[in-house]
Amino acid sequence: MDGQISEPESLRALIEALRCLPGVGERSSRRMAYHLLQHDPQGAARLAETLLHAVEGIRHCRLCNGFSEEEICAMCSSSRRDPSLLCVVETPADQNMVEASHGYTGLYYVLMGRLAPLEGVGPDQLQFDRLLSRACEAKVEEVILATNFTPEGETTAHYLSELLRARGRKVTRLARGVPAGSELEYVDAGTIAWALMERRGA
Amino acid sequence: MDGQISEPESLRALIEALRCLPGVGERSSRRMAYHLLQHDPQGAARLAETLLHAVEGIRHCRLCNGFSEEEICAMCSSSRRDPSLLCVVETPADQNMVEASHGYTGLYYVLMGRLAPLEGVGPDQLQFDRLLSRACEAKVEEVILATNFTPEGETTAHYLSELLRARGRKVTRLARGVPAGSELEYVDAGTIAWALMERRGA
Repeated sequence: MDGQISEPESLRALIEALRCLPGVGERSSRRMAYHLLQHDPQGAARLAETLLHAVEGIRHCRLCNGFSEEEICAMCSSSRRDPSLLCVVETPADQNMVEASHGYTGLYYVLMGRLAPLEGVGPDQLQFDRLLSRACEAKVEEVILATNFTPEGETTAHYLSELLRARGRKVTRLARGVPAGSELEYVDAGTIAWALMERRGA
Repeated sequence: MDGQISEPESLRALIEALRCLPGVGERSSRRMAYHLLQHDPQGAARLAETLLHAVEGIRHCRLCNGFSEEEICAMCSSSRRDPSLLCVVETPADQNMVEASHGYTGLYYVLMGRLAPLEGVGPDQLQFDRLLSRACEAKVEEVILATNFTPEGETTAHYLSELLRARGRKVTRLARGVPAGSELEYVDAGTIAWALMERRGA
């Protein structure tokens, strides 16, 4: 035997499987495997169980496309949300951030991605037809586009805006501007330029 | 309902369980969970299976303390390794690096850690008695300390060196010096100082 040591097969398989996690390469997955086996076998067993449980139990809410264990998620079936507002976000993480602002009481649609033609993600992959039929329900009065302010997010918002306007929907976009609590000196020039263009009466 | 959205219970449990991985906090675990559920449920199921398999099947080799599925690992039972040399490393990752150097044909002892009194890791936690009885077997002629060149690794090497010398063993330490292929201009001063002190005839 020479070169790399011959690892136990089940250890090698675990190191390989950990690489399905985003941002985890060969070295991290190895460190994670060693850590779990040496210091936290209970945590590893619990992780295995929750993985299986989540993969089996979680599907997409028929209305908002977010993760849900039911056909319709708790938020979409809540009577305390305003059904005339529909906020379109890229991910559940973005949805969490909008909720954390305590500034929104309407419903959501979660795209689970954004247009990225180079990665093969187009309107079909994102099921834009589902979003359009949801957004065109009679009780929806305004669609708020809250995709990210990245090139892909902006493209997605622009594209959706065209489709929705063509169907006669009122469409708005989150305001761009100087972040709350920030000093102008440390804000990038592009943001200042937008904030100037979209200045409002004070 | 207001504030954070109410996540499905199985999603919340998965996000929590992923935090047992080293270096994974709230935000990363959330991103990992969303990724697995949205883009790689097969990977998640495979990860669950390999976790269970590894936690059940892997133990510590009776001789080298490394991970093994057998009582004695493949390397320790190999007839092609030199039993007169015993190299002490902190982790299996370090063992891999020594093997990758193709400069060593002896056997190993894996500490699975290093002395770190502030974290409550002392000689008992590292089972130094097991190492000592292994190192004092008659066929072992030299113990090579290959712990890291960090403060903890150096302390561990120093402590082990005292114990082993008191038992009459020949103990050596990996050489310190300028890394292969490096330019002096970019090597830190401490390394240069050591390389000067330990200079050899050319």
